[in-house]
Amino acid sequence: MLTLKANAVVGQSGGPTAAINATLAGVIKGCLDSEKIETVYGMKNGVEGLMKEDLINLNHYFEKNPSQLDLLALTPAAALGSCRKKIKTDEEIEEIYKVLVKNNIGYFFYIGGNDSMDTIDKLSDYARRNEGTDLPDIKFIGIPKTIDNDLDITDHTPGYGSAAKFVATTMQEICRDCAVYTKKAVTIVEIMGRDAGWLTASSVLAKFLAGAGPDLVYLPEKVFDEESFIKDVNKKLQNPDKPYVVVAISEGIKFADGSYVGEKKTGSYDDPFGHTMLAGAGKVLEALVNEKIGCKCRSVELNVLQRCASHVASKCDIEESRRIGESGVKHAVKGETGKMMCFRRLKNSDVYRVEIYPEDVRNIANKVKGIPDNFLSSDSQGVNDRCIDYMLPLIKGENDVIYEDGLPVHFEF
Amino acid sequence: MLTLKANAVVGQSGGPTAAINATLAGVIKGCLDSEKIETVYGMKNGVEGLMKEDLINLNHYFEKNPSQLDLLALTPAAALGSCRKKIKTDEEIEEIYKVLVKNNIGYFFYIGGNDSMDTIDKLSDYARRNEGTDLPDIKFIGIPKTIDNDLDITDHTPGYGSAAKFVATTMQEICRDCAVYTKKAVTIVEIMGRDAGWLTASSVLAKFLAGAGPDLVYLPEKVFDEESFIKDVNKKLQNPDKPYVVVAISEGIKFADGSYVGEKKTGSYDDPFGHTMLAGAGKVLEALVNEKIGCKCRSVELNVLQRCASHVASKCDIEESRRIGESGVKHAVKGETGKMMCFRRLKNSDVYRVEIYPEDVRNIANKVKGIPDNFLSSDSQGVNDRCIDYMLPLIKGENDVIYEDGLPVHFEF
Repeated sequence: MLTLKANAVVGQSGGPTAAINATLAGVIKGCLDSEKIETVYGMKNGVEGLMKEDLINLNHYFEKNPSQLDLLALTPAAALGSCRKKIKTDEEIEEIYKVLVKNNIGYFFYIGGNDSMDTIDKLSDYARRNEGTDLPDIKFIGIPKTIDNDLDITDHTPGYGSAAKFVATTMQEICRDCAVYTKKAVTIVEIMGRDAGWLTASSVLAKFLAGAGPDLVYLPEKVFDEESFIKDVNKKLQNPDKPYVVVAISEGIKFADGSYVGEKKTGSYDDPFGHTMLAGAGKVLEALVNEKIGCKCRSVELNVLQRCASHVASKCDIEESRRIGESGVKHAVKGETGKMMCFRRLKNSDVYRVEIYPEDVRNIANKVKGIPDNFLSSDSQGVNDRCIDYMLPLIKGENDVIYEDGLPVHFEF
Repeated sequence: MLTLKANAVVGQSGGPTAAINATLAGVIKGCLDSEKIETVYGMKNGVEGLMKEDLINLNHYFEKNPSQLDLLALTPAAALGSCRKKIKTDEEIEEIYKVLVKNNIGYFFYIGGNDSMDTIDKLSDYARRNEGTDLPDIKFIGIPKTIDNDLDITDHTPGYGSAAKFVATTMQEICRDCAVYTKKAVTIVEIMGRDAGWLTASSVLAKFLAGAGPDLVYLPEKVFDEESFIKDVNKKLQNPDKPYVVVAISEGIKFADGSYVGEKKTGSYDDPFGHTMLAGAGKVLEALVNEKIGCKCRSVELNVLQRCASHVASKCDIEESRRIGESGVKHAVKGETGKMMCFRRLKNSDVYRVEIYPEDVRNIANKVKGIPDNFLSSDSQGVNDRCIDYMLPLIKGENDVIYEDGLPVHFEF
């Protein structure tokens, strides 16, 4: 049923990043360049919009203005909108197929994290189960994105480098800010990463480059112990030449019993209306320092800023994110399906280089990759030189952000 | 007692900013260039260090390496360290004089906010009261800095433009981040400024330039009313094309009775150890939305990031901050004392231009300048075009930040 020239559709899903639009730009470029693709459509708000046939013709926006792709690539968040939908039943898949067939879609690209790879898995599995029927031949390709860097198999994920660059840049600035007074003080910086400490680990990068960074680092890969925490902080506070202590913590640090520090029952509080609100790991530790040490203490949550700060995105990340999007299209038109595009770091190369290849999505979906043991250190920095060497190339380079009247210009549909 | 060539001393005081080191660079340059100044010393941690004769010879660092001044100018926080000391007695002044005389200081420069201008006021007042005695002739000059932009008389303060650029940049990125989902949601962004709304007002700049910005803005210049707030938010949430609402609030918004929203008694909570902690205005309003509307709501505190984000500092601000420092030296050697350096915006000029002049510090110290009535609007944006026209030139231009291995390089003594 698939004609020689088919259409393509691309969607974005899950939490936004500073690089997910760069991957979208790559997919669009790949589609515009391909002789096998007629028109590329964008799903508004991922498969949720697709099921309502809420599609926009992307050729219309970019065919005559390819320079707009450069602007799109440096726009944060998800320009097509996102969703958090997980496909659960064959009925939902059939609904999706109906829209795809109606629009003569031969290629389906989905940019996202773990849930999005699960969608690719489910759709391609359905296609496999219905081989030999009159179900049209559609290629399903997933392209990763997550600031958490916690997808399996791929060397790293698009979006991580930019978030890591923001965290390292900001952490250095916060450390300078903390250094101005002579009084004992503790600053706790809470960084995203519920199950993996990759982003929190990046907070030490400036320090390894002879700049400034946190004195103590707590990752979800290690059990968090209140007593050792207070002992560690107290020890650092004793330094007469450096009376301030900066602590980097992952939002996902856990106690020995597996419960999150940020959900510590006594750390919750009743809001003005009697609802219990979660204080978050930073606030819980701020209270702990107040109680056990009593010096000035404040907590800073980097919050959504770390995933949308495109003004300081990594050039390496943005370029790779575009490349992996383009590469996904090339592999789809070659016939690949049910794959997630991955980075492989070339060994035996003096300089950092990656190749991009497709990997069976079933090997990736629904798994979480934390920092491996051989990257962890037993000192206060949390990670060792091997981890630093792994992270450093990913934050390199600055983009030519387009400023007008002092502010970055973004792409908007 | 003052020889033809005297020494100078410079200190930094109060909260750090992204531009206070640019002003320090300007003062150092002015001193190195002046024929009347032998050596310029830096006070470690302001007058607190000065009283302990904790001085560093700045000629030593910069005389042979003037390019280091460029690096210093783009380093956030206060490179010399800061303090929060307010001079209270003549005994303290005499202690300071002792150190100044011992080090043959003829020129005293103090970079800071309101408290620092009070120090300049007290020291020059003491000199005036002792005229005719053998007290050596020392010139006392204050150079403003505060991200809050709340000093009187001067058109604006060094440091404000950079903080405003960070706020406007980040607010646009947060708005993009919020726009990706189709569910009703409220995001409250809490911005610094306890007594004046200048920084919160800057959050609308990208929107005025056809970019993205907050839907609702609450400034400390206007009384905060819970009921109208909920009504405003509810109205915005009714827009089917834009189900998310972004609210910018100043940390200093107050109820009609003059109490701070962030200190609302029921908004405080007991930490795990039974201490009462202040929730902050953002958390109080988050709880209010949860109670009265019930849709998804989160609050984001920009926190110290807005005062130390030198990687996205305003070029206009950094250049002006250097100029006002240099100008302070020129006026001191010409004989001015007891003055704060001010900006005056030139009227009848097509392009934005300022001149720098000294103003009697007694007219400035211990006063707060909020947004004037003729800059406020009655609509949801809080401020009018006049205010936008005032703010826009201050955030203009990007600096040539020096990056090494993907991260900004900072100056360190």
